[in-house]
Amino acid sequence: MNPTVGIVGGGQIGKMITQAASRLNLSVVVLDPTPNCPAAKAGATQIQADFKNPDALRDLASKCDVLTYEIELGDTQTLREIESSGKKVYPSSDCLKIIQDKGTQKQFLADHKIPVPEFAAVHSADEIKSVTAKIGFPSLLKLRRDTYDGRGSFTFRNPRELSDLLNAHTLNGSLSKDDYMLERFVPFTKEISVMIARNAQGKTVHFPVVENIHKDHILVSTLAPARISPKLAAKACAIARKAVEKLKGVGIFGVEMFLDKKGGILINEIAPRPHNSGHYTIEACTHSQFEIHLRAILGLPLIEPRLLSPAVLINILGTRNFEGPSRVKGLEQALSVPGASVHIYGKEGSRVKRKLGHATVLDKTLAGAMAKAEKIRKCLEVVPA
Amino acid sequence: MNPTVGIVGGGQIGKMITQAASRLNLSVVVLDPTPNCPAAKAGATQIQADFKNPDALRDLASKCDVLTYEIELGDTQTLREIESSGKKVYPSSDCLKIIQDKGTQKQFLADHKIPVPEFAAVHSADEIKSVTAKIGFPSLLKLRRDTYDGRGSFTFRNPRELSDLLNAHTLNGSLSKDDYMLERFVPFTKEISVMIARNAQGKTVHFPVVENIHKDHILVSTLAPARISPKLAAKACAIARKAVEKLKGVGIFGVEMFLDKKGGILINEIAPRPHNSGHYTIEACTHSQFEIHLRAILGLPLIEPRLLSPAVLINILGTRNFEGPSRVKGLEQALSVPGASVHIYGKEGSRVKRKLGHATVLDKTLAGAMAKAEKIRKCLEVVPA
Repeated sequence: MNPTVGIVGGGQIGKMITQAASRLNLSVVVLDPTPNCPAAKAGATQIQADFKNPDALRDLASKCDVLTYEIELGDTQTLREIESSGKKVYPSSDCLKIIQDKGTQKQFLADHKIPVPEFAAVHSADEIKSVTAKIGFPSLLKLRRDTYDGRGSFTFRNPRELSDLLNAHTLNGSLSKDDYMLERFVPFTKEISVMIARNAQGKTVHFPVVENIHKDHILVSTLAPARISPKLAAKACAIARKAVEKLKGVGIFGVEMFLDKKGGILINEIAPRPHNSGHYTIEACTHSQFEIHLRAILGLPLIEPRLLSPAVLINILGTRNFEGPSRVKGLEQALSVPGASVHIYGKEGSRVKRKLGHATVLDKTLAGAMAKAEKIRKCLEVVPA
Repeated sequence: MNPTVGIVGGGQIGKMITQAASRLNLSVVVLDPTPNCPAAKAGATQIQADFKNPDALRDLASKCDVLTYEIELGDTQTLREIESSGKKVYPSSDCLKIIQDKGTQKQFLADHKIPVPEFAAVHSADEIKSVTAKIGFPSLLKLRRDTYDGRGSFTFRNPRELSDLLNAHTLNGSLSKDDYMLERFVPFTKEISVMIARNAQGKTVHFPVVENIHKDHILVSTLAPARISPKLAAKACAIARKAVEKLKGVGIFGVEMFLDKKGGILINEIAPRPHNSGHYTIEACTHSQFEIHLRAILGLPLIEPRLLSPAVLINILGTRNFEGPSRVKGLEQALSVPGASVHIYGKEGSRVKRKLGHATVLDKTLAGAMAKAEKIRKCLEVVPA
């Protein structure tokens, strides 16, 4: 009777989708290579196989009524075949194909007159040098596909750093292929993001615009709401909404943007799924991003969520010190902070910068939530189990 | 490394405890006779056996670090034996033994000078008549044990209704035993309740006082916060806290109270567990009653939760029309109400007044939430699957 949701990936996002589905007594099946993945621990049925295994994807499709994903690494060829068989895949394989290649994504946005940083596809060291000569320093060389959390993204601030990068062994093999793009570094004043959900009928709703603080390309804090004017927030929402509409996206999308010194807004990147910067919605909004994603892909009523309280999210990340089985030290201290909720994802092992959990702190003021969040960050530590 | 929580019962309360535990990556094992009970669907491991099966209780105890329950029908004898073996049982078997007999519970509260309605244990028809002559009409004859949601509670408003009741077949067999108590009906102006949590160190915290609307002894709505003065709310909290302290309760307790015409507060009943009137806390408070219960029984920091928004909870109940596999009709309409969250418990079959789900509506005002809740109630209907 109730629809079953299939998810490619059963990590923390799959887990939180499963938890939202569980409230409505919806069944969830996930495809994930890790035995007893986080989503499975929260009640999802797991197909244990690689995300890109075509047979496993088909098996997943056969077991669900609608297919979605928590990672953008999907095999769009097989997803398209699944769509052709009549199964709903949201966001669609067409949409995923555009998004999963950062170069194609940027070109798509530029073609639709949606503001993005200056960029160019590059195929050789010479091309990188000539494009850089045009767009200037600092710039970034980015892997276009199969990357997340800043992996495969290299910043260079001057010709010397560019030379070093080009000499580095890692790039040598792939520069002749369609693997890299070059992007001008935006001297942003803030990084902001907004979660936009859209259903198959084209209705969109959005969460509040939030402010993100990254370190080494990985999200360390999200402040909700962003400390920007209502006018600027409305402008950011309009840009993000236009992008999702042009993509004909169905489901929830995390749209990351840069705010530049002149009040301009440029889209940095779009995630076709619930997004780390939206995890705070579980505690701080009338509806979570996970529930709204389910509503969008299942054709259930899409309604505008409302922020109930200022909130700050911090990530709990694996450290440089070790890899392997881990535990979070200082949990008791973190839980002693009023308004703090801690999520531990239940991943088996830690590695550098791996997202192992997060904490969301609510407070009557954003400044209060920020102070509490820093207190929590200081007491939490990932240590060997 | 992480503690495992054992729960006697895997219905909706067990499910919502499991969901709260899942956030912290705590494992849960439940004892429940129904195959694939709601808590199991949310990721708990299930031992399928009767709640009172001593071997199953021992098995549950052996698989967890702390034992708790979602129903007060537990076998206190076996629980005491489990405590003696060194396993933590919260609330304790002593506390449960007092609470699970409504007569003992009332006497305990009266002995500690905590206000309760007039009552008396009764063992014969003659005793019922003589006590009623003393305390007056209307009164209630109540089964003292193994009852919930108003089952085994009979109101009589005059001598004729009392005669009819005494002639009724259902009472004949048990009147000579210690099974019934008589209680004066309180002409209340409001029914209120408050969730109090207490840890093993004796620290207590409380949720806001809420207002309950019952129909045929079953909760149909909870309004948060109660429409009473802050002074009266503080008085209700103080009474409820005193009761939990005297019981040496560890865990969360739902304390139901009557507010009489003179501003007096009388305790009606105490539940030694998360309570239906506290389900709204999932969406409306900084922390849910389920998380706070876990914190209390696991010795994690107990902090005072805060109401983020006025909220109204309504129950989704089985109807008189049928028993058996069911589904909730009108879910889409309910989900179209802004601020409404719906929980479907995933019980296999419906029966009269069975709790199959609930909805919580948040709104900027309580009046707004009440209006929305009535709209939702009208569109939801339990129908055959």
